[in-house]
Amino acid sequence: MTTSPRPPLRLGIAGLGTVGVGVVKIVRQKADLLAARTGRAIEITAVSARSRDKDRGVALTGYAWEDEPVALAKRDDVDVFVELMGGEEGPAKDAIEAAIARGKDVVTANKALLAHHGQALAEAAEANNAVIRFEAAVAGGIPVIKSLTEGLAGNEISRVMGVMNGTCNYILTRMQDAGLPYDEVFAEADALGYLEADPNLDVGGIDAGHKLSLLSSIAFGTRVDFDGVALEGIQRISIEDIHQAAELGYKIKLLGVTALTGRGLEQRMSPCLVPADSPLGQLKGGTNMVVIEGDAVEQVVLRGPGAGEGPTASAVMGDVCDIARDIRVSTFGIPAAQLTKAKSAQSNSPAPFYLRLALEDKPGAMAKIATALGDNGISIDRMRQTRHDDTHAPVLIVTHKTQRSALDQAISAMRDTGVMASDPVALRIETV
Amino acid sequence: MTTSPRPPLRLGIAGLGTVGVGVVKIVRQKADLLAARTGRAIEITAVSARSRDKDRGVALTGYAWEDEPVALAKRDDVDVFVELMGGEEGPAKDAIEAAIARGKDVVTANKALLAHHGQALAEAAEANNAVIRFEAAVAGGIPVIKSLTEGLAGNEISRVMGVMNGTCNYILTRMQDAGLPYDEVFAEADALGYLEADPNLDVGGIDAGHKLSLLSSIAFGTRVDFDGVALEGIQRISIEDIHQAAELGYKIKLLGVTALTGRGLEQRMSPCLVPADSPLGQLKGGTNMVVIEGDAVEQVVLRGPGAGEGPTASAVMGDVCDIARDIRVSTFGIPAAQLTKAKSAQSNSPAPFYLRLALEDKPGAMAKIATALGDNGISIDRMRQTRHDDTHAPVLIVTHKTQRSALDQAISAMRDTGVMASDPVALRIETV
Repeated sequence: MTTSPRPPLRLGIAGLGTVGVGVVKIVRQKADLLAARTGRAIEITAVSARSRDKDRGVALTGYAWEDEPVALAKRDDVDVFVELMGGEEGPAKDAIEAAIARGKDVVTANKALLAHHGQALAEAAEANNAVIRFEAAVAGGIPVIKSLTEGLAGNEISRVMGVMNGTCNYILTRMQDAGLPYDEVFAEADALGYLEADPNLDVGGIDAGHKLSLLSSIAFGTRVDFDGVALEGIQRISIEDIHQAAELGYKIKLLGVTALTGRGLEQRMSPCLVPADSPLGQLKGGTNMVVIEGDAVEQVVLRGPGAGEGPTASAVMGDVCDIARDIRVSTFGIPAAQLTKAKSAQSNSPAPFYLRLALEDKPGAMAKIATALGDNGISIDRMRQTRHDDTHAPVLIVTHKTQRSALDQAISAMRDTGVMASDPVALRIETV
Repeated sequence: MTTSPRPPLRLGIAGLGTVGVGVVKIVRQKADLLAARTGRAIEITAVSARSRDKDRGVALTGYAWEDEPVALAKRDDVDVFVELMGGEEGPAKDAIEAAIARGKDVVTANKALLAHHGQALAEAAEANNAVIRFEAAVAGGIPVIKSLTEGLAGNEISRVMGVMNGTCNYILTRMQDAGLPYDEVFAEADALGYLEADPNLDVGGIDAGHKLSLLSSIAFGTRVDFDGVALEGIQRISIEDIHQAAELGYKIKLLGVTALTGRGLEQRMSPCLVPADSPLGQLKGGTNMVVIEGDAVEQVVLRGPGAGEGPTASAVMGDVCDIARDIRVSTFGIPAAQLTKAKSAQSNSPAPFYLRLALEDKPGAMAKIATALGDNGISIDRMRQTRHDDTHAPVLIVTHKTQRSALDQAISAMRDTGVMASDPVALRIETV
């Protein structure tokens, strides 16, 4: 909105993997568009990455090279430190802290770092009049952080839920579409480079849990509490579960839900059954979806690609353009010192559950299971023995609405009966 | 982000209908939350509406009353003029101009005004260092303008499409669900108060066209060109069309599409067939959906309530909070003087079309119709005579992909044959 020309905004980019290269491309190819939109030139002055010689398919001429991200973060000719290396400790953290200490703004896609150190980093940023922006850290190209922090700022948020890990969704969708077992699809995903170096980050729900903990903080004005996220991965989902869910009219999704209730901050990330024809049930592959519920807006649903060069770079550039436009909002929507420490609580709202059990082939086994459920006030909607092999009787149960705490007690009682051949798979059925 | 306390942001609200009352409620009930998020108190100092004595279900004590919106806009104790009266001319325009002339920021839900006078108002605002924000003008509670202007600022936008008139969607959904004819559902909607004073604004597609023209400007950096929107309403959609579409696996939606192509700015708002199981096809009642396609982000889809007290007030308050946070972006994303005048072009990308004809009961009528299509290079995918009454033979045709221009020529040739009992209904089939 200003009429006098403003100095260029100078970026230092640490990390030239897929996303970093995507950002370089946008800055190089859209200089005029970005300048028109933000009122100033956006330039890259310096970069840093592991290997200097690698061909990344994009020209890096004209950029200073730093071997160390911290050195990059400290450069006088860098206004915004763009951290695209990842990792919850080590160089990414050191470099972001160095940038903030010098009052430089930070744009990052690093959910692990913010999930673990968000509070300290936000406090440091505010003490140094710097901002930290991280749209790319959650749900890829979807402008969910902006929507929640700014667009819906007039709302008291009641609940946020979403499918936020493309790799898990790819695995679950592929199992369903191709009828392949988990291990085989996992190997496929690995070969395609879809998995993190530590695959447990994906399939264990940790990555998605990181994202959920950041959304919780923004939605409810609470300190980031990743440890408070009840995490369950998708590793125990079998092709049998996929088939059974489909027969019941559901699909299995790794679903995150967070709500601040009278009981405390309830955060969970776990595989759930959702209606096959619902928007969540129709999600394919790497597409993410976030559902935001607020008292004024009722419900807003955002869908888009959760990863990849273009979408993630789009989110990074949204943040960069905000900074170029002098849009400066607290890291988690309100000043860090005002974020409250909410008590972490188990999510316990009633829901039907899907239970898959393997019973020892003993007389009375089924009766013992039914008794364990009944004793805990859980009534059965459907129950059937699905197949039978030499040693175990696989049993499928859909309960009427019950609380997770009651179900956990029932499962504990089942274990005590000595008829369980393995631990049950228990999945919440969300009627979203 | 500042540490020294900032003075309150003082709102003057013109118009105390549903949305105005919603805004008053949020400001009164969430003072602490809004102050925490924006770093300053948000207060209402003065209001204006038609009737001073009406009970609106919310306290207006402590607010100065102005009978004239212009007087409200000029008050020294008003920082932000919130215009919620509506109307493309008259008091709303006068008052906004008065506010801008005094350098006051404006928040409005008035799509008609901006669709007709957006360029002049944006220029005036920039000349006076004021901003105009209008999230509530498009797609109700969905933060679509923010997403497009800010979150996706790193993208070259290729296409924006959406269902943006809840009333039309209500009518079309209700016809389908209840099997009722258009006239009956229209009367219902009228009785429920869903229709604008001039119902043609809704069912003629004008209101949705206004919204589309605003999105075009933001997406493509072009001057608002409402006259360039090819408008078709839903008045001619019969229950027969709804049934036929359903049988083919489609639903009928009033769909807006805008794209800047080599041919020019292509804007259309018209009833289309969309796959019944697609996200657009599943939209119910007053829910809006906007699909944004950009070169980096690929596709982002936003869904939410398109109208109503809470959702629209949520959008207004998002804008108010932006101003409180010193977020100041040009009205249409880039400075008004840089918005280009794009040539308006007919949208002509090939698509299959649905055609419903009423033929005179004459020998050779069908042959003449088929010839008119064939002569214009249009091949027929499906064709059938659906029923037959005493005078007319209703004929349903689904074409293979063709261009609208070819179809218009074919329809013109059909008219010349003298076998058409009435004008055909021709609907594009969008395979979104």
